[in-house]
Amino acid sequence: MIVDNSLDEVKKRESALKVIKSIMEKDGRASLYDVTGLSGGFIASEDELNLLETYVGPAIFEDELQIQAKKHLGGEKALAVNRTSSGILASILALVKEGDHVSHFLAQYPAHPSIPRSCNIVKADYDEYINIDEFKIEDNTSLVVITGSTMDHQVIDEDLFIRVIEMAHERDIPVLVDDASGARLRTAVFKQKRACDLGADLVVTSTDKLMPGPRGGLMAGKENLIDQVKIKANQFGLEAQPPLILAMVNGIKNYSEENLIKAISRKDDFYEMLSKDYKLFEKTPTGCMVSENSLKNQLDDLDIETELSDKDLCFLWAMILLREEGIITIPAVGMPGASATIRFDLSTQDVIDMDLDVLYEKIDSSFKKLLDVCKDSKKSKELIFN
Amino acid sequence: MIVDNSLDEVKKRESALKVIKSIMEKDGRASLYDVTGLSGGFIASEDELNLLETYVGPAIFEDELQIQAKKHLGGEKALAVNRTSSGILASILALVKEGDHVSHFLAQYPAHPSIPRSCNIVKADYDEYINIDEFKIEDNTSLVVITGSTMDHQVIDEDLFIRVIEMAHERDIPVLVDDASGARLRTAVFKQKRACDLGADLVVTSTDKLMPGPRGGLMAGKENLIDQVKIKANQFGLEAQPPLILAMVNGIKNYSEENLIKAISRKDDFYEMLSKDYKLFEKTPTGCMVSENSLKNQLDDLDIETELSDKDLCFLWAMILLREEGIITIPAVGMPGASATIRFDLSTQDVIDMDLDVLYEKIDSSFKKLLDVCKDSKKSKELIFN
Repeated sequence: MIVDNSLDEVKKRESALKVIKSIMEKDGRASLYDVTGLSGGFIASEDELNLLETYVGPAIFEDELQIQAKKHLGGEKALAVNRTSSGILASILALVKEGDHVSHFLAQYPAHPSIPRSCNIVKADYDEYINIDEFKIEDNTSLVVITGSTMDHQVIDEDLFIRVIEMAHERDIPVLVDDASGARLRTAVFKQKRACDLGADLVVTSTDKLMPGPRGGLMAGKENLIDQVKIKANQFGLEAQPPLILAMVNGIKNYSEENLIKAISRKDDFYEMLSKDYKLFEKTPTGCMVSENSLKNQLDDLDIETELSDKDLCFLWAMILLREEGIITIPAVGMPGASATIRFDLSTQDVIDMDLDVLYEKIDSSFKKLLDVCKDSKKSKELIFN
Repeated sequence: MIVDNSLDEVKKRESALKVIKSIMEKDGRASLYDVTGLSGGFIASEDELNLLETYVGPAIFEDELQIQAKKHLGGEKALAVNRTSSGILASILALVKEGDHVSHFLAQYPAHPSIPRSCNIVKADYDEYINIDEFKIEDNTSLVVITGSTMDHQVIDEDLFIRVIEMAHERDIPVLVDDASGARLRTAVFKQKRACDLGADLVVTSTDKLMPGPRGGLMAGKENLIDQVKIKANQFGLEAQPPLILAMVNGIKNYSEENLIKAISRKDDFYEMLSKDYKLFEKTPTGCMVSENSLKNQLDDLDIETELSDKDLCFLWAMILLREEGIITIPAVGMPGASATIRFDLSTQDVIDMDLDVLYEKIDSSFKKLLDVCKDSKKSKELIFN
């Protein structure tokens, strides 16, 4: 294994950031194509920037945040957090005690690691389910979690969503929805209702996922629960700081479902193009993706011999895409525990109007390089870490 | 008790932020005087702002952060975190296990609550000491913490600082220094060495304390320890986001010891002015302050009858200072657990050139109002929460 643990993932990310910097400096921003679907923005006017002081900033932006967050997520009260993961940690610190149980329902494994990790910190038992018939709520359960849309954009069925909430509420257990990308994917693309409108008590979304906001988390829900989460967030420094809050407000204001819808209309053409030569791509709601398994299978079909693990192959391809073609994907720059699936999101600003033939050429050419490099473990390691 | 728990503290802060907003809207920024010493800035050029994207931003600013952080704090590697508290949480998550021991040495009680609270989360034993002769490192200790300068700006003696580090290192235990304001107060004012230069393995400072940076935390230290802390920070969303990193870099670049030195030169005049009529003020390195005790004693001397607790009296005065005079102090806007001491920091941008007579009048007039209001518990509660 080349990328074997969280420290390796941190080092890989550091290496990717260095490559991005050097491309920026050498060829400029236009030579980078961020298709992560996580390319957040930082929209701010000069007047707003002048207010970005410790105590004056939040005073001004907090009111507007409440208004915009309620429009976007519903609920009684909102709370801006530093990241979706820190919102999940704050929620679990506030609502779950040692020995309690947390049940998590999602459309498909794996769950985002911040949920079991946060349970582990408070020493709570944790179970996850993808089959509603197996879904159980143990006696000492203090929190039920639902993932609206997984890291790989698998969206939960709305009827199951409602059923899990009902099961939890029958027993007076609050429901937290991890709607990181789901708050937009589920509503704009799958025409589902907002989590709070379906009865969720707390919801958290990522303000950089499929919307022009900053990397950050936005929570909404029942006022008394938000207040409890806010205490933990403030105690441990998990809340969003004024510059993020400002950019979140403007991100929501500038969000429209248009880019998502446009990406969907182009993804079928893109998928067809890719599938002529390759059978490793799958459709996502807003583009195409390659999973660890499909990549491994395609290499096996081509009789490529490699010592690399399936995951390492994804990391390697992501680094080649970045180094050779300037294409930024999550396996290159993701935080520890992020999915190794290589996703090409067509809804991002960098590719929303890009000629798909050009994008295809870049992917095709980087794959050929991958076939060559992956036979050489030493060279692969260099490409990932240096 | 009016402000009785963390939730009350959150509500009090929300109320103070509303007052700040209304003053801003009605009378403009010039009618607010932030003397918290926490009035961070957000210095950024237009070009830099354009780079504030999720993955492009950190790629660009990360290198510069390493350079500037090393200049400011020393050490082998730096890490930007969302707040000093989140850096402390990340450090304890990384280095301390259940049943381990953490020993904390500081100049004066109380310790910043994020340290015992983080120990509590991982179920570690925690002890704090202000007397070097009593200072003990238990057998199963995995971390020694030193506070460079307390929330009330009590600075540790440099010889004791070195002695605690030596005691920890004799037993191969890493030392984390909470140098929130100390990284500047100790060095610029008390001419002490930087924590890393004194042998500390990790240090964290607040980039909004006594420097023109954003609310946020900056860590530095041994590379292998920073890497371990970084993993936890990334896993739980405790790291600083690109807008903060950018503003931290510029905050350090724009920091000079001048304002601190100037504040010191004015504080004696200010103290003399205040002490003519009042005996409740004490000097701080950069201004004057009123502790819970001194406030209570002065009211007793004046035979004022009040049902308010000592802490509530501080909160009430802070809210009157804000509502009536536009003076922002920490007890009004602080996070849960922040000190109730009312500090008037003369080094902040808003008062660095202010006529001290004008500032005196404001403090004097608000104190007279306090004497009146504190007799009426209902009215006091309204002023704090509404």
